[in-house]
Amino acid sequence: MSQPKIVVLGAGYGGLTTVAKLQKKLGVNDAHITLVNKHDYHYESTWLHEVAAGTLHHDRGRMKITDLINSAKVNFVQDTVTAIKPDEKKVELTNGVLEYDYLVVALGFEAATFGIPGLLENAFTIGSINQSRLIRQHIEYQFAKYNNESVQKQERLNIVVGGGGFTGIEFLGELANRVPELCEEYDIDRSKVRLINVEAMDTIMPGFDPELIEYAMNSLEARGVEFKLGAFLKECRPDGITIEQNGVREDIPTLTTVWAAGVRANHLVEESSLEDNRGKVEVDANLRAPSHKDVFVVGDCALIWNKEIDRPYPPTAQIAMQEAEICAHNLIALIKGGELEEFEFINRGTVCSLGEKDAMGSIFGGKKLFGWSASVMKKVIDNRALFKIGGVGLVLKKGKFNIFG
Amino acid sequence: MSQPKIVVLGAGYGGLTTVAKLQKKLGVNDAHITLVNKHDYHYESTWLHEVAAGTLHHDRGRMKITDLINSAKVNFVQDTVTAIKPDEKKVELTNGVLEYDYLVVALGFEAATFGIPGLLENAFTIGSINQSRLIRQHIEYQFAKYNNESVQKQERLNIVVGGGGFTGIEFLGELANRVPELCEEYDIDRSKVRLINVEAMDTIMPGFDPELIEYAMNSLEARGVEFKLGAFLKECRPDGITIEQNGVREDIPTLTTVWAAGVRANHLVEESSLEDNRGKVEVDANLRAPSHKDVFVVGDCALIWNKEIDRPYPPTAQIAMQEAEICAHNLIALIKGGELEEFEFINRGTVCSLGEKDAMGSIFGGKKLFGWSASVMKKVIDNRALFKIGGVGLVLKKGKFNIFG
Repeated sequence: MSQPKIVVLGAGYGGLTTVAKLQKKLGVNDAHITLVNKHDYHYESTWLHEVAAGTLHHDRGRMKITDLINSAKVNFVQDTVTAIKPDEKKVELTNGVLEYDYLVVALGFEAATFGIPGLLENAFTIGSINQSRLIRQHIEYQFAKYNNESVQKQERLNIVVGGGGFTGIEFLGELANRVPELCEEYDIDRSKVRLINVEAMDTIMPGFDPELIEYAMNSLEARGVEFKLGAFLKECRPDGITIEQNGVREDIPTLTTVWAAGVRANHLVEESSLEDNRGKVEVDANLRAPSHKDVFVVGDCALIWNKEIDRPYPPTAQIAMQEAEICAHNLIALIKGGELEEFEFINRGTVCSLGEKDAMGSIFGGKKLFGWSASVMKKVIDNRALFKIGGVGLVLKKGKFNIFG
Repeated sequence: MSQPKIVVLGAGYGGLTTVAKLQKKLGVNDAHITLVNKHDYHYESTWLHEVAAGTLHHDRGRMKITDLINSAKVNFVQDTVTAIKPDEKKVELTNGVLEYDYLVVALGFEAATFGIPGLLENAFTIGSINQSRLIRQHIEYQFAKYNNESVQKQERLNIVVGGGGFTGIEFLGELANRVPELCEEYDIDRSKVRLINVEAMDTIMPGFDPELIEYAMNSLEARGVEFKLGAFLKECRPDGITIEQNGVREDIPTLTTVWAAGVRANHLVEESSLEDNRGKVEVDANLRAPSHKDVFVVGDCALIWNKEIDRPYPPTAQIAMQEAEICAHNLIALIKGGELEEFEFINRGTVCSLGEKDAMGSIFGGKKLFGWSASVMKKVIDNRALFKIGGVGLVLKKGKFNIFG
C-alpha cells in the first residue's frame, strides 16, 4: 500500500509547527512528508523588527531547518514555490514539480501597499531576514554618510515608520533604543534624529486597552518618537513622503520609510484556483479549503472569522501555531483514522514590546501588564514559540533570558 | 615681558608630537601655546585602513585631544583652518583669527587624484575617521543589498583598490580577512566577491626588497586578491572603472573604488604665500619655511630631500614624528636660547601589515621580517607611536597587544 504524500509549503510558524507535530505522531511508514521552503532556515518573523533596528543579530532569530526536522520522516526541499495547482494536485517550484495527496499552504504574508504611489518602489518592509538586515544597514549607512557631506542632509536622519500597529510600534521601541548608539558611533547629536510614526487611525494599537495605548505612547515619546495620528500617507518618494493630516498636506524629507501598516497573504494563494476572500482562503472549521478538501491552509494565508466581533482574526504567530496543531491533528486523522477537530482560537493574551526593557499587553482573561513584567512575559511568549518548533533544545540555544538586562 | 605665541595647526602625528614635547620642556610662563584642530580628537591615521575595512573600531584609534594635552600649558581650539597668512603672522579659522610669533604647520595630507576623470566624485579615500567608517559601512551595505534584488549585481561584490603602495596593500590585507565575515553575515559565497588591486607600476610596494614583495603578493593572492599591475586607471564612474593594461582597455563593474594611490599636502599650503614645491614647503635644515623663518612645517606638508637616492622622503608617520621632535627642540631654543638642531632622518625600518596576523618589512639595518614576527613588530611600531603622543598611559589604553590573536 502506497504512503500518502503530504506536502507542506513554508517553514514559518504555521508550516514548521505542523511538521513538528506530524513527525512526532506519525511513523516512518505512515506518510511521505515533504517540507518546501525558499531558504534553508526558519526565522522568527515576530523578531524581525529587532533585526531591522539592529538590536538583535539575525542569527539569533533563525535556525537551520535540517536541525529542526527528523530527516528519517521529513524530506526537506529548498526551493521557491511558483504556483499552486490544486485541480491537478500539484505544486510548481522553480526547479521542479511536487505531487501531493494532502497539501498544507503556510506561505505567510507579504506587504500590502494599498496602491499608495511610490510605496512599493521606495519603502522598506520588515518581511524577511534579507529585508530586515538591509533596513539595519540602510539606516546605519545614512548615519555614516551624514558627517561626510559639506551640506548635511536632514533626510538621512529622519526615519519614518508607516503604521501604528504591532510591527510598527515594536520596531519604534527598538529604534528608540538603537538611535542613541548610532549617534555615538557616528558623532551625531541625538536631537538631530527624528523618529516619526505615521498612522491613519486616530490611535496606535487599535483594539488595545486605552490605558495600555497611553503607556506605549508615553514610553516612546519619552525616547523621542513623534506620532502623526489620523495622518494618511499620500506618496512615498526616494527622498521623502507626503502625508495628509486634518486636511493639511505636509512633506517630510526622509531616505528611510519603513512600511509596517499592512500585510496580505502570499500572492500565490490569490493566483491559484483556491477560492479566496481578499487574497486569503476562508477555511472551513477543519482548516481546509472549501473548494479543495485535500488542501489545508494555516497562518497568514487563512481567513477565520471571529464571530464575537464579526471580523476576521488578525494574522499572528499565536493563531498560526494553534491552527498548525489542529491541521496536523486532522491530517493524522485522515491518514490513520479518527475524528477531525474543529479549530477554535484560544486567546492567550498579547504583549507588545517597546524595546529591550519595556512592553505592555494583556494576558489570560484581560489582566494588563506594563513595563518590566510585560517585557518578561514577552520573552516567555517568544521562548514558547521556540519550544513549539524545536523543543527545549531550541529554547536553550536561541531563547531570550536576559530579563534583568 | 610678553610670552611668545606658538600656534600649532593640526593634531596629527606631527602637530601632537610637537605639542607633547613643548609642554614637557616649557614652563607655564615660557610661551603661550595654542593647538588648532578640526575635530576634538586625534586619530592614528596609519590605522585608518583597518577602520575602513571594518577590522578595527575607530574608537580604538582615536583619542580626545584634551586627554593628551596639559591644559595649564596648551590652549586647544577646535576649529577649521581656512587660510594661512604668513606675511601678516596670522591664521584664519572658520570662527576667528589667531596671531602668532611662531607657527607650526602640521596639516597633513589629502588625496591626490591626478585629474583622473570621475575619481574625485566617485571614489572613496582613506583620509579621516569619517571617511573610513563610511567606507566600512558602504561595503557592508552593498553586501546587505545583494540578496535583496531579483537580479543580483556583481558590481556590489567587486571592490577595487587603486594603488599598490603602503595604504592600498595594508587595506587589502584587512579586507581579505574581513570579506569572509561579511559573506557569512549576508549569506553570500566567498567565491563571488572580487578584491582587485590596480597599480600603475609593474610591482606593488616599490622600493621594497623583491623577496618581501613576493611574500606580500602570495599572502594576499592566497586570500583571493587579484593584482592588476602596470594597469592605469583611466576613468572612475559611479558603477565601474576603466583600466588600461598592456594597451588593452578593460571595464570593471564596481560600486566601491577606494583610491589609495596618491596623497598631496593639505591645499592650504599651496594657497598660502609660503614658497612651495609641488604643494609642499621645502623646509630648511631646521624645518623652517625658507621664505618665513618663523614658520615651521612638519609631516606631510614638508618636503625634505633624501640625498642618498636624490628623491624626497615619502610622507610617513615615522618621519613626521622625528621632524616634530626637532621642530619642538628648535622652538624651545628660539624662546629660551640654545642651538638650533638640523633634521636628519633615522630609518628605523618599515613594516607593512597584511592583516591581523601577517606582515612583512625590514628593520634596523635591513633585516627582513615575515609573517608573525613582522606582525608583532608592526604592533610594536603602532604602540611606539602612541607612546610618543600620550606616554605609557595611552599605550595601555589603546595599544595593540593581541600578538597571539
